[in-house]
Amino acid sequence: MADRYFQHTFPSGLTLLAEQMPGMQSAAMTLLVPAGSSTDPVDRSGAATVLGELVLRGAGARDNRQLTDYLDSLGLQRGSGVGVHHTRFSVAALAPRVIESLEVYADIVRRPMLPESGFSPARDLALQALAGIDDEPRQKLMLKLRESHLPFPFGRNSMGEKAHLERLTPDFCRADFAQRYHAQGAIIALAGNVNFDEVRPEVERHFGTWDGRAGNLVATKPPDSRYSFEEQKSEQTHIGIAYDSVPETHADYYVARMAIEILSGGMSGRLFTEIREKRGLCYSVGANYASLKGLGAIFGYAGTSNERAQATLDCFVAELHRLSDGVTRDELDRAKIGLKASTIMTGESTSARAAAIAHDYFMRGRIRTLDEIKDAIDAVTVDQVNDYLKRSKPGPFTIAIVGPKELKLP
Amino acid sequence: MADRYFQHTFPSGLTLLAEQMPGMQSAAMTLLVPAGSSTDPVDRSGAATVLGELVLRGAGARDNRQLTDYLDSLGLQRGSGVGVHHTRFSVAALAPRVIESLEVYADIVRRPMLPESGFSPARDLALQALAGIDDEPRQKLMLKLRESHLPFPFGRNSMGEKAHLERLTPDFCRADFAQRYHAQGAIIALAGNVNFDEVRPEVERHFGTWDGRAGNLVATKPPDSRYSFEEQKSEQTHIGIAYDSVPETHADYYVARMAIEILSGGMSGRLFTEIREKRGLCYSVGANYASLKGLGAIFGYAGTSNERAQATLDCFVAELHRLSDGVTRDELDRAKIGLKASTIMTGESTSARAAAIAHDYFMRGRIRTLDEIKDAIDAVTVDQVNDYLKRSKPGPFTIAIVGPKELKLP
Repeated sequence: MADRYFQHTFPSGLTLLAEQMPGMQSAAMTLLVPAGSSTDPVDRSGAATVLGELVLRGAGARDNRQLTDYLDSLGLQRGSGVGVHHTRFSVAALAPRVIESLEVYADIVRRPMLPESGFSPARDLALQALAGIDDEPRQKLMLKLRESHLPFPFGRNSMGEKAHLERLTPDFCRADFAQRYHAQGAIIALAGNVNFDEVRPEVERHFGTWDGRAGNLVATKPPDSRYSFEEQKSEQTHIGIAYDSVPETHADYYVARMAIEILSGGMSGRLFTEIREKRGLCYSVGANYASLKGLGAIFGYAGTSNERAQATLDCFVAELHRLSDGVTRDELDRAKIGLKASTIMTGESTSARAAAIAHDYFMRGRIRTLDEIKDAIDAVTVDQVNDYLKRSKPGPFTIAIVGPKELKLP
Repeated sequence: MADRYFQHTFPSGLTLLAEQMPGMQSAAMTLLVPAGSSTDPVDRSGAATVLGELVLRGAGARDNRQLTDYLDSLGLQRGSGVGVHHTRFSVAALAPRVIESLEVYADIVRRPMLPESGFSPARDLALQALAGIDDEPRQKLMLKLRESHLPFPFGRNSMGEKAHLERLTPDFCRADFAQRYHAQGAIIALAGNVNFDEVRPEVERHFGTWDGRAGNLVATKPPDSRYSFEEQKSEQTHIGIAYDSVPETHADYYVARMAIEILSGGMSGRLFTEIREKRGLCYSVGANYASLKGLGAIFGYAGTSNERAQATLDCFVAELHRLSDGVTRDELDRAKIGLKASTIMTGESTSARAAAIAHDYFMRGRIRTLDEIKDAIDAVTVDQVNDYLKRSKPGPFTIAIVGPKELKLP
């Protein structure tokens, strides 16, 4: 597989990653810039989100309209967003168009116009997206759960806070751009019908002289409270439960992952069969592993009617505790098959692979091959899982509720 | 491309479709059964949804738990859902596992246990999913818009109505199963690393003796009202606009599609640039073409703050009317590139292709090749688009609003 994966870090600190998938016609790019919600200035939460919108409003020689038209004329499917650690720009298209887009993405992250006229609409959109959460109780709940569980500033809402967004100015955004959009810690990941020997000089040409600076250090502090209740008149109650897990780089990672797969993977997962299928307590229930630099956590969700909310919470917590009693070999086998199958399916999507190798490099400093992942899954034994579950009882729990009334906590 | 696409209709009326994608390790299956929301009995809206849940609760020799465990042990990523015309079961996995799953899906659609004990939880889940819409104003709006725009029974909510769901019984579900789960009009579409000559006898073995019956005729009648307002206390107003378009099989289809791409495709689409980017009126805005058997429609959505709601609606309608003034060659070129790129990307996903060929066959009685779609897009001229837009002024509009107060209609 040595001819499939490539990585190179330029002197500026920018890293280029490539996964050659020769059977594909398409390619995808994930470009990560070290401007995430965790490095938003303390009193300017949401700054990276507004900046991520603003850099797309004209860059290099192209004004806002020309830039948008040009990107669409390449046939790019594109997106952008702000995560805890980075601002992400992603594109997928026919492979030659993705390579062509390197030049314009260099403009976007290195030479945006940051026009005065674009600032108000960009900030307004951020304010509206934030206000829109009021109509999305499930999203509201999960944001609250992250904030209550993760250490600050990892738990911050990347959409920001209203007062903070209102405090932003065009000058502030320009200074913030100069501070956080730089080569050190930036990652360009390409996957698909690309040739590393050809793309490397292209990336060097457009990003080679990109300025690098030391990244911002992030000091963390624990969240204020492990419980949050937000009253909302509704027939529905939304319940979130979080607890710590091992980081993705920990030796126990795959062991812990398999336990969560057994809890919530596929439709034979315990949460699904016990809470949804057998007892019909709620339509939507599940738990996921979330990976941040240096920490891992489990975030669970259940949405149910008000009269079933207490039973659902009790049942959810009981299932988490029941993990400590151990899992069966059949459960582990199904979980392995499911996770391996989804890994292989991911290997057929250029977008998924570009995102995955960028994530891998950020977490580990290297790309994992698909075979390495499959082998790691295969190597997990039922004894390892049960030993881990005995050692690592789930909890303490962080709990968030959005609904008409509070619930009795476990 | 003759060795890529295959179709065969068995004497029972079941059609098998296959797209051979030899570069893939995976395969995907879409299985359509002629039980859609449009054939739900008039006073039992939601029956297909409950039935679609119930058939998965044990089938053939496997009880509920054994069936779920077995499906997960194949590593299947699977889903099911009810659309206007069909109940859909879909799986994706390593190709040999998908072929293996044919046997158990034959059990599911031909020999489900429909157990008494599974009925209450299945119906409860449907009731909960329905109640959950109250917390999803955007979804609530789009359901209302479909209901107000499409002729009955095409506009019905597949999730059903509360009173109708409460009227269901296990016996009713069994009779409904006997009535609507049959081979006539059913479609099995396979895409990925499959060989038609090998899968055809497998399908024949498991589905060959499946009973066929004439489908239910659906008599349509126009919706009662073209306007709906649902009061909801919120900072946000959700706006839906719908109007008729040509059916997918109409000679003008690609011409009409390109017009909608120009309106709302990519980020250079008119709705996005005029309403979101230039005026910052709303965070989320767009319009899509929806295809039903024999009819096409455009469904538009905008979500915005209450104080900008009227301006957003006015601006949205103005953009729809402005289409009649014509589009530019640049706009058309970008739209073509965008739609062709997404067509090619779809060609790299076994799940997307299985769904696409099943849809094609249902609409046209045959599979379109990817090249045929690309050629059809390429053939559209700016004169054709402008001529179409002059002939087909958008409207009359169906409008739905979910928010705290009514808006002035255009």
